[in-house]
Amino acid sequence: VLGHLIGPDITEMIRNRQFNELRRALASFGPATIADIFVDMAAEDVAVMFRILPRQLAADIFEYLSLESQEALLHSLGKDEVAVVLNEMDPDDRTALLEELPGAATQRLISLLSPDERAVAVRLLGYPVESVGRRMTPDYVALRPEWTVGHVLEHIRKVGRDKETLNVLYVIDERGVLLDDLRLREMILADPASHVSDLMDRSFVALRADQDQEECVRLFQKFDRVALPVVDTDGLLVGIVTVDDVMDVAEQEATEDMQKMGAVSALDAPYMNVSFFTMMRKRAMWLSVLFVGQMLTASAMGYFEEEIAKAVVLVVFLPLIISSGGNSGSQATSLIIRAVALGEVKLSDWWKVLYRELGAGLALGGVLALLAFLRIFFWPWSEGDYGEHYRLIGVAVAASLLGVVIYGTTIGAMLPLVLRRLGFDPAVSSAPLIATLVDVSGILIYFSIAAVVLRGSLL
Amino acid sequence: VLGHLIGPDITEMIRNRQFNELRRALASFGPATIADIFVDMAAEDVAVMFRILPRQLAADIFEYLSLESQEALLHSLGKDEVAVVLNEMDPDDRTALLEELPGAATQRLISLLSPDERAVAVRLLGYPVESVGRRMTPDYVALRPEWTVGHVLEHIRKVGRDKETLNVLYVIDERGVLLDDLRLREMILADPASHVSDLMDRSFVALRADQDQEECVRLFQKFDRVALPVVDTDGLLVGIVTVDDVMDVAEQEATEDMQKMGAVSALDAPYMNVSFFTMMRKRAMWLSVLFVGQMLTASAMGYFEEEIAKAVVLVVFLPLIISSGGNSGSQATSLIIRAVALGEVKLSDWWKVLYRELGAGLALGGVLALLAFLRIFFWPWSEGDYGEHYRLIGVAVAASLLGVVIYGTTIGAMLPLVLRRLGFDPAVSSAPLIATLVDVSGILIYFSIAAVVLRGSLL
Repeated sequence: VLGHLIGPDITEMIRNRQFNELRRALASFGPATIADIFVDMAAEDVAVMFRILPRQLAADIFEYLSLESQEALLHSLGKDEVAVVLNEMDPDDRTALLEELPGAATQRLISLLSPDERAVAVRLLGYPVESVGRRMTPDYVALRPEWTVGHVLEHIRKVGRDKETLNVLYVIDERGVLLDDLRLREMILADPASHVSDLMDRSFVALRADQDQEECVRLFQKFDRVALPVVDTDGLLVGIVTVDDVMDVAEQEATEDMQKMGAVSALDAPYMNVSFFTMMRKRAMWLSVLFVGQMLTASAMGYFEEEIAKAVVLVVFLPLIISSGGNSGSQATSLIIRAVALGEVKLSDWWKVLYRELGAGLALGGVLALLAFLRIFFWPWSEGDYGEHYRLIGVAVAASLLGVVIYGTTIGAMLPLVLRRLGFDPAVSSAPLIATLVDVSGILIYFSIAAVVLRGSLL
Repeated sequence: VLGHLIGPDITEMIRNRQFNELRRALASFGPATIADIFVDMAAEDVAVMFRILPRQLAADIFEYLSLESQEALLHSLGKDEVAVVLNEMDPDDRTALLEELPGAATQRLISLLSPDERAVAVRLLGYPVESVGRRMTPDYVALRPEWTVGHVLEHIRKVGRDKETLNVLYVIDERGVLLDDLRLREMILADPASHVSDLMDRSFVALRADQDQEECVRLFQKFDRVALPVVDTDGLLVGIVTVDDVMDVAEQEATEDMQKMGAVSALDAPYMNVSFFTMMRKRAMWLSVLFVGQMLTASAMGYFEEEIAKAVVLVVFLPLIISSGGNSGSQATSLIIRAVALGEVKLSDWWKVLYRELGAGLALGGVLALLAFLRIFFWPWSEGDYGEHYRLIGVAVAASLLGVVIYGTTIGAMLPLVLRRLGFDPAVSSAPLIATLVDVSGILIYFSIAAVVLRGSLL
């Protein structure tokens, strides 16, 4: 938005080659704000800006751009500028960019890094996708227990500038094993002559590099931290994860869950940036699977064709009944998927959930059955519309609704738990999948109940 | 989990009144870990623990308990202990607890606060629900531009202990107007003789107290901050919001969206803690609304009863067609709801979304139409099952699928944008709502197309 206002002025200054004025004008904004301005500008102008800005500022701005803008900009920049930006980037943001690019591009970019940065980049990319290791930065401040607080502050003044966070400091022994974490504030508040070991309580929370990144969201929320240390299996400190990256992970996981709940494979990129073809692939696959499943409804219907021919009035209520089952299933499944994702419901609670949702199905089914019953019984045109046996039809419809809603609620609640038990992502039990499962059974339930209720009258 | 292991030992020690040993044993754990142990313990034992632990530690532990456990514990504690805990709590966590309780309980608890803390609590509760003001804490460190860095560090040593965060410091003028924010690290890295004004760049991001809390999630993510200052309409600094509270807000907003997408009103509490009655109310309301909407399908079906009686085979494919429309609508709506929530799609982009989803509907509908066509044309038993005109039926089904999927995709994508335009939450355009809308139209589309294709043969 800002770019719309200031962007034209900047473009004008670039045309007039007023580079010094431009540098001065932008100096008053922070990197996040400048990144915001760049979003609305033409790629070639942004590339010019990157060449004239101080390299550290350019690298900072680059980190605030979206992954898509970063990728686009890399194409417009010369090899030297790309090398500068990549070498100055925080390693965790760089990993996010490198894993987004096609393999060949990643290799080309890594070759532009200095030997030190290359070693870091390759090590971070060596951790599994979606693991804590991929979100790590090795830019932290490590202390030794025998140092004095005064020495620590001096050390921070010397090495602190390039570190991602100084809010938390890490105490390690001579082998690099993590002993404790201390907050910078504790250093400030402590007597400069005291030792680091005096401040240590040896109680700390650490992540494991091979842990799933989703688990680290839970830990950050539980311990309210701005950074957590990451250790390997021997307890050696290998990096830290900062809260800004964890917020991104939390958002990404919620987005994935919502997309799966809508029966779309996770898009992994903003809606507007996904190519049409990729989008179709991610949607057509699930839609076709559900469609093939839905073909069972045609078979189920075929099975009852004779009954339908005798009592056409029955099919009038069919969509109402099966979609009520689907709706109640959607409700249950979206509640349970989110509760499982947040750790509110554990697998061992399955019987509590079952008990609760059976009750819910009974209550909700009862409400809908009553509504349908009243509608068919007391509608003044019921006899004209549905024939002389409309009261019996009302009974069959109400009983079917009760059965279908209980069935839908139970399946909707249990399927996410079953999927989790089998090692799948519970979010795959989408509303459409539940609806498909319930549709087939809904047809069977409705016509079976109708066959019993209407025997000797309509059927 | 930890509580299952250590809990029995603690209970045992309480029975034996080994309070000193207990205090020592727990001293090695942090407050978050102790809170974890308490979760699995009996309420009366936890109340005992709260009495014997140092009051600051007790207050810290209390903050790490869930809102539900906090509420339960307040009932078990005596009035004096409650007063201690409430007075020591961080104001932002206290607001979260007070707004959760019924009005009378909130009033009773506020009366237990010291005059200073009471003024803070009442002021925070004066901000609208879900506003930034409710998530604020007034515990920050404020600086004046004319101070030296050395004086600042001394000031922090004096007042810093009770502050929620020292990571960011705030520079204000004599009236309290926010001038700049500085990070503690900048103070450490700077020359002690320099002035605060030397470090200031007067560029800062601030929240407004009356802003919606959802917007502050976006700002934290954009600027990667651990805390942001909050100002009133005159630019006066009134408090700060820390990233841990923002993560909670982000999680809560995602949960609400998912529940709404599943056609449940937001639960506002973990699944297992919501009373059965409340849960039913939140689900039955939506389910009944959808049901009444679905009754239109019965009217639509009734309208085509004559055609159905002539060609019962047509209804065999009805569930397949209408649910394919619902599924494609669910996909589109869940993609767009999340894209709108993340700010990836703006209202002004509606025509881009429309264009894209019309294309998607055409492509996806084409795939399903082809599948259905092949299935009916080349199924060896088609003629036996569906009669001599099975080829024409195949054409009608395929054409209807194409129409229904295009319709479902477009409605599913547009409805969230229309709702947002009208000032409603887009997440209300749940999968079930879309399915209901598409079902009625699906019936009309199918039978209208069938009437044209099968005129003179079946109909």
